[in-house]
Amino acid sequence: MSVTGAVGFVASGVHSGIRRSGPDLAIVRSTEPAVGAAVWTTNRVLAAPVVVSKRHLETAEPQAVVINAGVANAATGAAGIADAERTAVEAASALGLAAEEVVVLSTGVIGVPLPMDRVLAGVREASASLDAMGGAAAAAAILTTDRGPKQAVVAGDGFVVGGMAKGAGMIHPRLATMLAVVTTDYPLEPGESTGLLRAAVDDSFNRISVDGECSTNDAVVLLANGASGAPRTAARDEEFAAALGDVCSSLARQIVADGEGATVLLEIAVSGAASNEEAEAVARRIATSPLVKTAAFGRDPNWGRVLAAAGSAPWNGGFAHVEADRLSVSFDGAPVFVRGEPTGAKPALGGSAVTIDLDLGLGAGSASYLASDLTVDYVRLNAEYTT
Amino acid sequence: MSVTGAVGFVASGVHSGIRRSGPDLAIVRSTEPAVGAAVWTTNRVLAAPVVVSKRHLETAEPQAVVINAGVANAATGAAGIADAERTAVEAASALGLAAEEVVVLSTGVIGVPLPMDRVLAGVREASASLDAMGGAAAAAAILTTDRGPKQAVVAGDGFVVGGMAKGAGMIHPRLATMLAVVTTDYPLEPGESTGLLRAAVDDSFNRISVDGECSTNDAVVLLANGASGAPRTAARDEEFAAALGDVCSSLARQIVADGEGATVLLEIAVSGAASNEEAEAVARRIATSPLVKTAAFGRDPNWGRVLAAAGSAPWNGGFAHVEADRLSVSFDGAPVFVRGEPTGAKPALGGSAVTIDLDLGLGAGSASYLASDLTVDYVRLNAEYTT
Repeated sequence: MSVTGAVGFVASGVHSGIRRSGPDLAIVRSTEPAVGAAVWTTNRVLAAPVVVSKRHLETAEPQAVVINAGVANAATGAAGIADAERTAVEAASALGLAAEEVVVLSTGVIGVPLPMDRVLAGVREASASLDAMGGAAAAAAILTTDRGPKQAVVAGDGFVVGGMAKGAGMIHPRLATMLAVVTTDYPLEPGESTGLLRAAVDDSFNRISVDGECSTNDAVVLLANGASGAPRTAARDEEFAAALGDVCSSLARQIVADGEGATVLLEIAVSGAASNEEAEAVARRIATSPLVKTAAFGRDPNWGRVLAAAGSAPWNGGFAHVEADRLSVSFDGAPVFVRGEPTGAKPALGGSAVTIDLDLGLGAGSASYLASDLTVDYVRLNAEYTT
Repeated sequence: MSVTGAVGFVASGVHSGIRRSGPDLAIVRSTEPAVGAAVWTTNRVLAAPVVVSKRHLETAEPQAVVINAGVANAATGAAGIADAERTAVEAASALGLAAEEVVVLSTGVIGVPLPMDRVLAGVREASASLDAMGGAAAAAAILTTDRGPKQAVVAGDGFVVGGMAKGAGMIHPRLATMLAVVTTDYPLEPGESTGLLRAAVDDSFNRISVDGECSTNDAVVLLANGASGAPRTAARDEEFAAALGDVCSSLARQIVADGEGATVLLEIAVSGAASNEEAEAVARRIATSPLVKTAAFGRDPNWGRVLAAAGSAPWNGGFAHVEADRLSVSFDGAPVFVRGEPTGAKPALGGSAVTIDLDLGLGAGSASYLASDLTVDYVRLNAEYTT
């Protein structure tokens, strides 16, 4: 299912030979005229496919997405830009589209040129094998060293939202990173999808941290073709926004759970902040703290590290508002620190999920974040040097 | 030598029993009326000794510093504040000072109360054993799990600047962190030392990263007693500022080299930035990037990760100015990426230091940073759970 769960979407995944074995090139296409949008990495160093696809989306509505795994086509200079553009031109020609209607995405090793003969042959092969049952094949072809595919489908009242993603399994050095494609047969007007997608991404993909890194290739793309025929109503609009959010949240959660070397999923909830923005800053700081994340790996309810992280959350040129004697912390529901005083409790942590609740005791702002732990395997995998 | 290298300073280090074995309590005292200043952690969650000592420095010039290792007296509530104040009162009584003239510092486990009987007995014993040769004993008594003491002395024209520090050997969970005491017999006026110390700290302790964490206890204290008798001149003032900077830089470098689990010292130099502030933001981002630091552990000249980090350096509410096609990167002097194009070079990295030079190609701003690598031992040590 995944990206072909909605009516009017076809997909495929093939082995083009960019990687030694396994599928490494996917295409997702709407068979009906679609509108769409993308949210891109905010990194100032953009991979070539991001540069090219951003340009395409400025002039046309996206109808198809081509994704290759194995080579990120990032930091590849002018030749990399030309390669990304050639990929789009080849796909457009095979699919009967304008090049500007094609979004190209790459994930894999940074600084290595795409093997263009294989990529172009792969694009032709994938274009010829597009199928309404091809979602699973596409979801498999975008993975690098993820432990498994990440897919989600939510059915609404007469429409479907589906998606696939690849995660931060940055096991190879120089791998660049998170991608997601979300499709729906719900009818959206041109220009409308950007705001809807951004809101969904803010509450999902922007609330996860594996290692606090921001890749050169990250992208989330939404295609909406209206093929469900479901008439729009205010209630259905609301249901669609919720379904879009649910698909993004599900994919984001799958990415964190499959974070590289991860052994535990940390669910961090911050409440009582002066504002939602400050709550998010504090939650993000905790989610990216090496000391909190190594403690989680050791199943240590280390509230001292949570407090130290909370007290140093970058916000607005300084740190978010935190007052030590108003803080309360619970691990898995057990209070370990209440309004500035330790309780003496030492909850035993087990299993594959740990919740950390931090109440700042200042206001009504709240935010949550998902994070993976920082493990010996994370370091080992990222220290390995292979060229 | 270290903190007793300058004329008119005495110090001691004793075993008080806060830790099971080894010295754990140090006193440094000026035998002449001194002026002084401190730079404190910017964490919003302050340890009790930081709260108390900040208050003291608002009303008096510091004459002595009492430091205990083993228990950080952080996140200990109202009782912790009272314990820090009692420690200062006991030291003041033993040394014939006002309590406000005593700075108290603690380092060790967060969230655990100080064993006050032992602390107070230790303060009395350390006060009785102050000696002009006691610098080494004091430097040993402030360590927690550092691999060794950190000391530095610079002699100027008729004056001396000496210092000691403890580093981020956060091997025990909940350990809180960097402390340094710098002494000099150069004559400074009241109020003058704050600016001088801050400038020295900005270029040294504020330019290092072991794990990007900001502790609840960090402090750098300067005492200046003028006992050298060296008359002040403009040339000597300049020499003093340089000597103060050198002592702070030496101690900071020793801290990074002894970073927990560290196997390599990363020297990161950013040039060509739009401003010095942006250069610093980029250098800091690289110095705290888990992917750059794990690559360093693997001795991998991974310029892709350096670029990705440089492109996502928080600055001024967004990211620092970086243009991908103007970037150049060298590892140990070998260019691997020049003005947006990979060179294909793969320098072999070895030894215990690696230099990364990044030229942003935009302006004249520059900054440097020291960092340790992120290693399997770092994770192991911080994941261990001991209560």
